[in-house]
This record gives sequence, structure tokens and C-alpha cells, in this order.
Amino acid sequence: MSSPEHIPEIAIIGAGPVGLFAAYACGLLGYRSYIFDLQSELGGQCVLYWDKPIYDIPGFPTITARNLVDNLKQQHAPFRPEYRLEEQVLDITKTDTGFTLITSKDNVQVKAIIIASGIGAFGPRKPPLINIHEFENQSVFYSVNNKELFRNKNLVIAGGGDSAVDWAIELSSIAQSIHLVHRRSKFRCHTSSENTLNELIKNGKIILEAPYQVTELHGENGQLSEITLENINDQTAKNIVCDFFLPFFGLSADLGPILKWDLSIKKEMIPVDMSTMATSRDGIYAIGDIADYINKKKLIMIGFTEAMIAAYAIRQYLNPNQVFHFEYSTTQGIKAL
Amino acid sequence: MSSPEHIPEIAIIGAGPVGLFAAYACGLLGYRSYIFDLQSELGGQCVLYWDKPIYDIPGFPTITARNLVDNLKQQHAPFRPEYRLEEQVLDITKTDTGFTLITSKDNVQVKAIIIASGIGAFGPRKPPLINIHEFENQSVFYSVNNKELFRNKNLVIAGGGDSAVDWAIELSSIAQSIHLVHRRSKFRCHTSSENTLNELIKNGKIILEAPYQVTELHGENGQLSEITLENINDQTAKNIVCDFFLPFFGLSADLGPILKWDLSIKKEMIPVDMSTMATSRDGIYAIGDIADYINKKKLIMIGFTEAMIAAYAIRQYLNPNQVFHFEYSTTQGIKAL
Repeated sequence: MSSPEHIPEIAIIGAGPVGLFAAYACGLLGYRSYIFDLQSELGGQCVLYWDKPIYDIPGFPTITARNLVDNLKQQHAPFRPEYRLEEQVLDITKTDTGFTLITSKDNVQVKAIIIASGIGAFGPRKPPLINIHEFENQSVFYSVNNKELFRNKNLVIAGGGDSAVDWAIELSSIAQSIHLVHRRSKFRCHTSSENTLNELIKNGKIILEAPYQVTELHGENGQLSEITLENINDQTAKNIVCDFFLPFFGLSADLGPILKWDLSIKKEMIPVDMSTMATSRDGIYAIGDIADYINKKKLIMIGFTEAMIAAYAIRQYLNPNQVFHFEYSTTQGIKAL
Repeated sequence: MSSPEHIPEIAIIGAGPVGLFAAYACGLLGYRSYIFDLQSELGGQCVLYWDKPIYDIPGFPTITARNLVDNLKQQHAPFRPEYRLEEQVLDITKTDTGFTLITSKDNVQVKAIIIASGIGAFGPRKPPLINIHEFENQSVFYSVNNKELFRNKNLVIAGGGDSAVDWAIELSSIAQSIHLVHRRSKFRCHTSSENTLNELIKNGKIILEAPYQVTELHGENGQLSEITLENINDQTAKNIVCDFFLPFFGLSADLGPILKWDLSIKKEMIPVDMSTMATSRDGIYAIGDIADYINKKKLIMIGFTEAMIAAYAIRQYLNPNQVFHFEYSTTQGIKAL
């Protein structure tokens, strides 16, 4: 019984896979949701690895992040969650009937809140080079969207993890030259990647610059020409020719306004009661990577369960005196909202 | 690094979807598993509704039980669990290095045990008719495998739930006659099914026999000819012509030998620590429908999470002094066993 007047009662903060499934879990119990996210698209951290295979979603021997997000969208569609993208929830105030969310665009009334904001608002961790912003999106990139841009070009890749190593390997077949800059000669990456990397270094396809760091960027009108490297041990410097600089230093994340919502927070996570996902504030629940309890494992599949637990807990919270009988969707089907 | 000598270290008891995923979860952490089940095929209770859609597996807007089980098999395949079907675990004894399982066929050594046996060994709940076994699998069936058997035949269907109603509706288009026998005139079924049923009764396609129960079966050489119904209110009896009798009275389940394993058991369930899935006996874990803790919901998807939690807990139990760093399969890939 779809009704246009059915205004959402639950606010889900964060449109990652766990937030998307939370809209399904709430819908299953009869609640429509808002889903707020600062990003302009659904998917949360999945947007960082759209085409990487995920192996540990039950029932999928392998699935890409993109397909998982598409499926979750389709799964919650009967419950018509209202997407509120590029909209940040700035503050929360308690009202007689629930909460008012003060967002970057609006004031919104809800009965309960599920925080599924993962590691918070995130972006690439940038190296501290004063003029780097002058080159960003023209000759400095923190991720690779179009490999062809780098064909027959001189690349400097910096970082010591999987992204730096994997992209150095991947681009070595099309680039003119690749200098891989790292503070140590040891990389934190998959053993098989390291073997491939060492092979490419031996063959001269990748030039390893270790222990070095990038200290200066040179160029004009957004186009790099040279880059200065400094030896970590003896501080000697050298310049190398560079068309593109690709720093892969991981993510920097920021919980942002959530820190000011009077919730108990420990080490960038919100402690919850694992049997309900309730936070220290009545009516506010936390799930996914931001929720913490004993033996917590930050897995998408576990976040799905947390979403379901939170939905059941919210129904009981909103109907404290009612006794609910457990029903299977397999028997009952889905009641669209 | 697949090694033929890698003998399974974990016993998973129960080959339902949660047991199948437990073999994946254990494999992800480097442990090979045995999967024991009394049935002759994988799937647990899913075999009862192979082709019914399930709506609440995250990432699948809908999936049949059959496809879910197939996918879970494929997902755990790299970890080569050893299926031990039609083999019942009768007893468990503690050894210096783990446990010896005494099964209906063998003695098996393992380091840890995961009980994922659902509601236990299950079968159809049979009506108390003394000669019913003489007709079973010839003219009495507790489930429908081949609808064509019933074309142009006189059927008596008994029961008051979804199965009785759904099959009465389904078979009404091909049977010669259908008598639907129930102790009450009210059915416990989906509203839309009830509407269809009432329509078919009105049109004479289904004859409702309520408040009646089946009291006698008549026939010879396994072939029914007539069936006696007794009115619940006034005990008057009548005979009706019957080629096939289909009683749908749900499942009867039996935890069986598990009750004798010195585990704390309450209301046919095993209480566990929800942060580890540990039972009252060290090294024995319980997950899925048999595991109980506060706010427990018997959902397949929640069983998946319980399987993952148990696997991590087992790794810590088997390596009490080791500190493990959490790794994502997305980064590390799958290491086949």
C-alpha cells in the first residue's frame, strides 16, 4: 500500500552499503527512511574501489562494490527511501516526538536515527607540499580513473601500500617511466604484488626511489615538469622529470559534526549495546564501521546484521508496550511502502 | 597453497546455509572444515522450500533457497570443506588436542566444533493415523515434488497453514477434485492467498471440509481409495473418495544427540556468548537457529554473521597468545586451502 503521504520516520546517516541495507531493514518493519550523505552518489567507501571484487559477502563468491551497491538499491526500492545526497547532518535536537535534524540544507523531523557514517567524511591523505593544490586534477591525482592519460608519460608514484604498488605495476606497461617513491624499501602489500614489483624493478620498468620522499613540485599552469626528492637518511636532494604525480597515502577521515552530538565516542568509534545497536542517547543507533562493541569486526556483512538488529530495536523503542511476533519475509512477502 | 594433506580442523554440524557459510568463514582464516549432516543433500531447511523466494539476504533483492545454497557452495569451494552427508554426530569427547566426534560411521578428530544444526533433525509432522505408513510415498505425500502425479486425481489436502492453502490453490487447476480439510474455518496464511482460496471455494474448485479432521485411511497395496472425515463439533463421520492424501502439518524437529553433549540448553536452543558464539563448553560454538542470546532473531543473514564471529573466536581460542591483525579479503584475496 504505497502512499505518497508516508513521510520517512527514520534518518539514516551515511549511504554506504550498510546504510543502504538499513533502509531495507527499516522498510521490512514498516518504516520509511531518509538516507543522508555528504557525497554526491550512493556507496560510501565503495566509491573508492567500485570495480574491486569483494569476496566475503555471504552468497556472492565474488561481487564488485559497484554491483553490491546497485543490488542494495534495488533491494530497498520497494520501501522508497528518500536519498538526501550532498546534505550533511550538522546537529540533532530532541523533540517531543523524536528528533529535529539540522542539515546543511534543511530541518528534518524523524522518530529515530541510525548513524551509519563509517569512518566519517573521507578524502585522500595529501602530502604536505605547499603548492600541490595548483596541480591537482591536472597533473596530480589521488586516484586513477583513466589510465590512458598516463600513456608514454613520466610518472612519479608515492606511497608504500597496496594502491601505490598495484598502480605502479599496472601503469608500468604503458608509461614512459615510473619512479616509485617510498620512505622505506619494504612495502605493505600482498606478497604476490611485491614479487611482481621486484621483477619490474629488476627489469628497469619501475625505478625504486627509497628511502626518499617528495619535497617540492615544479611546473606552471597546473602542469608539473620536475619533482624534488630528498633522501630520508642523508637529506641529499635530486630532481627528476615528471609529467604526473600520483600520491597514494591512503585516506584521511573526519567524523565531523557527529563529534558534537553528545554521544559517547571512543577512538573515532561510537560504543553501542551489541544487542540493539543503541548508542548512549535514546533513539540514536549506530551501525557499521563507526559502531563499536566487544570483538567488533569491520566487515560489510556484519554491518548488514547490525542494520537488521537496529531496525528491530527501533520498532521496539517506538512501541515500548507492544509485543511483536517474528515473521519471515519468505512467508509474508514484502509490503511496499 | 592447496595441500592434499591439509586435514580439516573444524567440525561444522549442520549443512544449512549458515553451516555452509561457516565453512567459508573458517576457510578465510585458514581452517578447513568437515560439514556433517543427517540429510543426503546440502541445504538444511532450505530443501523444504527450494524454489521459494527469500527477500532478506543482503544484496539479493530476491533469491531462491536453491540458488542461495548453490552460491554458498561455490563461495566456500576454495576452502574444500569435506561434506559428510547422511552421517550423524552422536557424541563428543574432549581430547588433549581438541575433540573426538563419534559419528554414525566413524571417529573423527577436530580442534573445535561449530553447531549449526538449526531446529535439529526434522521431518514432516504426521497425522496420528495408524496405517499411514502403508500409503506413504505412493498415495500419501508430505511434500509435492511432481505436480503431474495429481492431474485428474481426487485429492484430500489437510492443514491450516500456508503450505496447505498454497498447494490447494496450485493443484486446483489440474486435479479432478480437492477437499481441503481443516479443524477450523480460519486459515493461518497470507491474506492474498486466503482471498484466492475463498474464490476457488465459491466456484466449487475446492471443497472446504471444516471443522473436520481425517480419522481413517482406506485402500490396499499402498493405494488409497477412500478417507474418513470426522466433524470436530458433533463427531459425525463421512467417507470421501480419495486417490491422494497430502497432509501439511508443518515440521517436527528433534535436537537428537546434541541434548546429551553436556551443553547448557534452554527451550531447544543453546545459549551462547553473542560476542564469540561460545557455548558453555570450551571449544564448542553454536550459530544459526539453534544459538540463543538476547534479542536473537532467527534470520539466515544473521546466522551468517554469527558464523563469521565464531570463526574469529575459534582462531583466538586456538591461538590464545597471538595478536591478529584484521585483514580484508578485498585487499588480500582468497587463499585457497
